Amino acid sequence: MQKEPFSEWYNDVIERAGLSDKRYSIKGMNIWLPYGWKLMGNIDRVIRKEMFATDHEEVCFPTLIPEDHFKKESEHIKGFEGEVYWVTHGGKDLLERPMLLRPTSEAAMYPMFSIWVRSHADLPLKIFQIINMFRYETKQTRSFIRVRECHFFEAHTCHPNAEGAEAQIAQDIGIMKRVGEQLCLPYLLVKRPEWDKFPGAIYSISADTLTPSGRTLQIGTIHQYGENFARPYDITYEDLHGQHQYVHQTTYGMSERLLAAIVALHGDEKGLVLPPSIAPHQVVVIPIPYKGIDVTDECKEIQRILSPQYRVHLDSRDVRPGSKYYDWEIKGVPLRLEVGPRDVEKKEVTLVRRDTGEKRTVPRDRLSEAVGDCLRSIGEDMRKKALGRLETSIIPIDSMKAMEKGNGILKAGWCGNEACGLEIESTSGMQMLGTPLSDSDESCKCIVCGKPGKSAYVARTY
Amino acid sequence: MQKEPFSEWYNDVIERAGLSDKRYSIKGMNIWLPYGWKLMGNIDRVIRKEMFATDHEEVCFPTLIPEDHFKKESEHIKGFEGEVYWVTHGGKDLLERPMLLRPTSEAAMYPMFSIWVRSHADLPLKIFQIINMFRYETKQTRSFIRVRECHFFEAHTCHPNAEGAEAQIAQDIGIMKRVGEQLCLPYLLVKRPEWDKFPGAIYSISADTLTPSGRTLQIGTIHQYGENFARPYDITYEDLHGQHQYVHQTTYGMSERLLAAIVALHGDEKGLVLPPSIAPHQVVVIPIPYKGIDVTDECKEIQRILSPQYRVHLDSRDVRPGSKYYDWEIKGVPLRLEVGPRDVEKKEVTLVRRDTGEKRTVPRDRLSEAVGDCLRSIGEDMRKKALGRLETSIIPIDSMKAMEKGNGILKAGWCGNEACGLEIESTSGMQMLGTPLSDSDESCKCIVCGKPGKSAYVARTY
Repeated sequence: MQKEPFSEWYNDVIERAGLSDKRYSIKGMNIWLPYGWKLMGNIDRVIRKEMFATDHEEVCFPTLIPEDHFKKESEHIKGFEGEVYWVTHGGKDLLERPMLLRPTSEAAMYPMFSIWVRSHADLPLKIFQIINMFRYETKQTRSFIRVRECHFFEAHTCHPNAEGAEAQIAQDIGIMKRVGEQLCLPYLLVKRPEWDKFPGAIYSISADTLTPSGRTLQIGTIHQYGENFARPYDITYEDLHGQHQYVHQTTYGMSERLLAAIVALHGDEKGLVLPPSIAPHQVVVIPIPYKGIDVTDECKEIQRILSPQYRVHLDSRDVRPGSKYYDWEIKGVPLRLEVGPRDVEKKEVTLVRRDTGEKRTVPRDRLSEAVGDCLRSIGEDMRKKALGRLETSIIPIDSMKAMEKGNGILKAGWCGNEACGLEIESTSGMQMLGTPLSDSDESCKCIVCGKPGKSAYVARTY
Repeated sequence: MQKEPFSEWYNDVIERAGLSDKRYSIKGMNIWLPYGWKLMGNIDRVIRKEMFATDHEEVCFPTLIPEDHFKKESEHIKGFEGEVYWVTHGGKDLLERPMLLRPTSEAAMYPMFSIWVRSHADLPLKIFQIINMFRYETKQTRSFIRVRECHFFEAHTCHPNAEGAEAQIAQDIGIMKRVGEQLCLPYLLVKRPEWDKFPGAIYSISADTLTPSGRTLQIGTIHQYGENFARPYDITYEDLHGQHQYVHQTTYGMSERLLAAIVALHGDEKGLVLPPSIAPHQVVVIPIPYKGIDVTDECKEIQRILSPQYRVHLDSRDVRPGSKYYDWEIKGVPLRLEVGPRDVEKKEVTLVRRDTGEKRTVPRDRLSEAVGDCLRSIGEDMRKKALGRLETSIIPIDSMKAMEKGNGILKAGWCGNEACGLEIESTSGMQMLGTPLSDSDESCKCIVCGKPGKSAYVARTY
């Protein structure tokens, strides 16, 4: 198995690691297998913790949205009407009011926000949900990247004014940073061009990471709605002066694409490589009996010592150690502990890192500490390595001529005009990701029209 | 607010405790509010733990099922076709293959089981999922009891033979028992009559509890499928002799009705009363400042001491203690800790039980132990009290004349014949729950025909 072409490797590793089964008879609707579901659950846990720490509350709205609620904000409908599934019948009855499967939950939530929000004391309203959403994708589907039923996180907030909403966006950027760190996912934070913002938003910010295929993957989005939804959905509050004001809204979305990125950015020819923060097993203990000397007791003792602090699995199956190594390498377990009779005798344990293959022996009496250090190092090294790859994949270009269709992310001057942006897209065959939120070079010239502009990123995308 | 009529009290307590909002514009599809969703999550955690401990693996299947897969088992279709939602369009396209929203997942899972199960080594296959399911209910909807989108748990297993399937059912009964204990929910375990079994099952076992309205509520079901689904879905394995055999299957289902039962069985005129095992806050600490003496530090210290072992909330809002009591009584927090200047001085803490209102003072240096003892007692007492009520509500009757339309569960002799069963139902205006799985009196006479029979339960149901 080769990492090239990327797509084949990607599909293969998802299958072999037991993350997802795409043989379900509706294309793009896949089955979460036990290991994949556990992994996704651990990612959800990272997100939940960040959301609770920033005073968001978790809710769960219905999956179905009545057509009339969906049709209230016109840009929003235009953006989604081609890709929603419609429920038209209940039993044998034609429903009077057709309903759609949520592609996102603005139209489900905002009529309720209109009821829930009465006065300034109800603000800010900060909620999130982790649910399944549906899109009738017509493009080629791909596990975790482009699916028709998607495991989705969405936060929705209401604020008394623009400043409140902007402060929320700053908080969201901080959450994205901490989630990215824990999942060892580097990304570029960009403001999307006007023609690619979320339908109904004033502006959209995206976190884009780069996969080994050379395509970028959007792994998080933050949207400023201003009053764009508050007006059609009539979400107002009474301010301190007794005046009714529209709320200002934001949303923040992430999805199973986080898992796609973890698979893509860290996996190698042996299989997955999982960040310790979310690995279902952080440590696997492999007994290596030799000449009939049983080491089971020692392995159980090691499991007992480590279990209070780490997620430890003892593989006591009756198969050769080599085939256990192989299985757990596919599944990306960060740290393997090998325990043979000599280790027992010398009161040592052998640690093998999944990410580097590095092997070292540590005294048994400081095992717990050594495992902790090692898992921390693995996380840090995975983070650094992925960040290094992203940074070196950014290619500054200063003319249309220099634009080549290659892997990576092009950084070019752009005046901000749609016409020039579309020209860059059509010439490169790539997409305009947008202008970086920080580190933006504000003194460059547009590579199309030569007028003053900012730096912008251009790449092939999923 | 009175507990009578029950329905009003039930709706009111759900609203005031912030469990669910039923003002969503599709009737029977309600919004899980933060407190309700946390509570449901804690119930899910109890279930998950039991399932993992019995070697089940968690998966997540797609929500949509293609029509042709659904139509494979004829009894199953007949049972559900009147109450499924149909997805007919994607965007503006009429779908070639209509799809339905799962009312249960047999038709989603079993085509995959047919692929997954190859040999005896693949058996038993034991999986479960916790998901949302959909039924186009035409009867009156009621929060957590009869809804159109339902939070649902379903386990599906495959075994090499009937013995394996029967052993699974015995295990499921054990799981139901432990779940019931943890949630303080007593129930009757009955074998449903033929005409009321799950569509496609050989037989169905139900756990029925009794609500204060006098109606029973089905809170768990276990089904023996035999080969009934394996044949149409072609789920076979190669046995040790190289012969292809059909698997034997079972399922086990529970839902948000567990929460309905907790609300209904334990709540009182002040609001919810939650079992400590699943209360989002097990303990709430209320500072009682007096004559300007601040007790915040002591309360924080108490929170710090208890937090490692219990779910503790310190209510430091700037409102009167009395209104804090009121709020947390509605939300059913099992134990309230009151801390005033005299308590600080005397190195004591006052504990108030939600279930009994009982108040006692414990020395601060054994607070953690006292809280643990108290929570355990609350759980035990709630369990006992509810069980006592269930047991005293069972009314043995020995003739059709003695059958009155009243609250409670009638226990009558029944020959097992459908005609007599339906006669009992029509005369009483109640439903035949079925014959008890244990404690069945096998020497009684059918109250309709006088032939020898077993005891059976009859009740009004939800």
